[in-house]
Amino acid sequence: MEGKLPINVKVLLEGEEEVGGEHIDEYVAAHPDRLKADAALVCDTEMFAPELPTLTTGLRGLVYTELEARAAAHDLHSGQYGGAAPNPMQALAEMINKLKGPDGKILIPGFYKRVKKPTVQELASWKKLPFNEKNFMKKEIGTTALVGEKGFSVLERLWSRPTLEVHGIRGGFTGEGAKTVIPAVATAKISMRLVPDMNPKEVFRLYSAYVKKITPKGIRTSVRVLSSAPASVVDTGSGWIAAGAEALEQVFKKKTVFMRSGGSIPIVGTFQRCLKIPSVMMGFGLPDDNLHAPNEKFHIPNFYRGIETVGRYLELLGK
Amino acid sequence: MEGKLPINVKVLLEGEEEVGGEHIDEYVAAHPDRLKADAALVCDTEMFAPELPTLTTGLRGLVYTELEARAAAHDLHSGQYGGAAPNPMQALAEMINKLKGPDGKILIPGFYKRVKKPTVQELASWKKLPFNEKNFMKKEIGTTALVGEKGFSVLERLWSRPTLEVHGIRGGFTGEGAKTVIPAVATAKISMRLVPDMNPKEVFRLYSAYVKKITPKGIRTSVRVLSSAPASVVDTGSGWIAAGAEALEQVFKKKTVFMRSGGSIPIVGTFQRCLKIPSVMMGFGLPDDNLHAPNEKFHIPNFYRGIETVGRYLELLGK
Repeated sequence: MEGKLPINVKVLLEGEEEVGGEHIDEYVAAHPDRLKADAALVCDTEMFAPELPTLTTGLRGLVYTELEARAAAHDLHSGQYGGAAPNPMQALAEMINKLKGPDGKILIPGFYKRVKKPTVQELASWKKLPFNEKNFMKKEIGTTALVGEKGFSVLERLWSRPTLEVHGIRGGFTGEGAKTVIPAVATAKISMRLVPDMNPKEVFRLYSAYVKKITPKGIRTSVRVLSSAPASVVDTGSGWIAAGAEALEQVFKKKTVFMRSGGSIPIVGTFQRCLKIPSVMMGFGLPDDNLHAPNEKFHIPNFYRGIETVGRYLELLGK
Repeated sequence: MEGKLPINVKVLLEGEEEVGGEHIDEYVAAHPDRLKADAALVCDTEMFAPELPTLTTGLRGLVYTELEARAAAHDLHSGQYGGAAPNPMQALAEMINKLKGPDGKILIPGFYKRVKKPTVQELASWKKLPFNEKNFMKKEIGTTALVGEKGFSVLERLWSRPTLEVHGIRGGFTGEGAKTVIPAVATAKISMRLVPDMNPKEVFRLYSAYVKKITPKGIRTSVRVLSSAPASVVDTGSGWIAAGAEALEQVFKKKTVFMRSGGSIPIVGTFQRCLKIPSVMMGFGLPDDNLHAPNEKFHIPNFYRGIETVGRYLELLGK
């Protein structure tokens, strides 16, 4: 270490994460000149396993929607009307089945057409990761079977394949006991995770058109987007990544692995959109850190290694 | 009128309907000797149309269930796990589709095997009812299409065919905004309306076995009954009905029509079960009385005609 920074560094601190983090986007959008940079370093990611230096090179995007189904002008009694009146809950069940098949394949025409495969280098790196499918299924998730598209490994399904999930259905009666209502309206929260190079606007257009097509008779549907963001991916062959991998290796004395994340880190999308810069995601969390949960921790050796790695990274970038 | 009753009459008054009506069942079950009778007269029904004397000769039964689907040990984030983790909301949608097809046919094996057709006399009577399908669909329900089994009229579907309806799905996120949860558990409220001679216990057994069979991989399901009652039907050829029809005709100067109701009147089931007696359902309400709703009314001429009809009925029974 030379006592002075070999490159210019701008530090952006945000302290609102636990209270919604609403202002950082506005701030970045309003100050592109002040924040002008070549790349961003984001440390809000994890290492794939303890002692395993990791760079996260991609995040999935999201289109989060509400699908509303309306039938009668008012709630109906299933005794009086059951057998003739359309039921929006039944209609949503039908439509959800037509959106995603039991094999995990999304049935919206054209949905997959822009999906870009991970690079050969990434796929090779993922295969070497110490991932135990049985542990993932039984211990981490706590279920008896995994689902999803055939022909793709679990990590591919989580990181590089788009998905569609139903998060909840509002409407009807869900309290304790028995109420025999055929609701007039029911609304499903349905989101799609996107991968490069899917375009959120186009995906929503395909989804809306398909929803219209599969709407059962007697039902009127409408869809709206609640939030939307494209996937982001960093070129694993770029200099920013190469220097990051090298810095990690020097400190951890192990070859750096590449992973992606199936979720989103909104600031990465914001940097991409407002500042047109890639983010190097070099984090030092561990899978058992209990993020945002009781007994959250941070592994102390990684605190020091993290400081050292970031220092080396700046040095390497200066060369 | 002769000033004295030609038959013995026992009057059972219940004042709890608007607060749950929990005690009448207990009371009837506890006093079969005191309430011993040959038949019951229940006036809690409607006339099919104004000026049209009507006897209700059947009610559908009910099996109301909760179907719970469990997958992971805890709620999951759809970013981190979507594409590999089973989603109980998706599973319920799949199962609901396998319980009832888009054509309204219930797909539970053996479900229809005990279904008894209405009598020829009933079917002929229903055909003569002043029922306008378009008004029923557009004005009464307020929808653009009716659903249900092919080959049966709307009234048959409502009164003499069993149905299956989803009333609500609990679980996941249904609040305002976007939350990307894959819930660990989701529960659907599903009921089946029964017709003679379906047996509620047997129906639940068939349903449970089928639910088990169609449970998707990675999902554990359980079902429970919340309430259950058989359908009830009065023999349209019985003396109780003949006298009722005659009494109505004398007062209203029109031929009495027979209808059924797609719902239940719990006390009719209670009388059947505890006292082993049929109920003659001779009511004077009108379809636009706004039952249990704002601006509830009772047509005053029917108040007087009702008194007269019940008097004539007792006279006729005394002969």
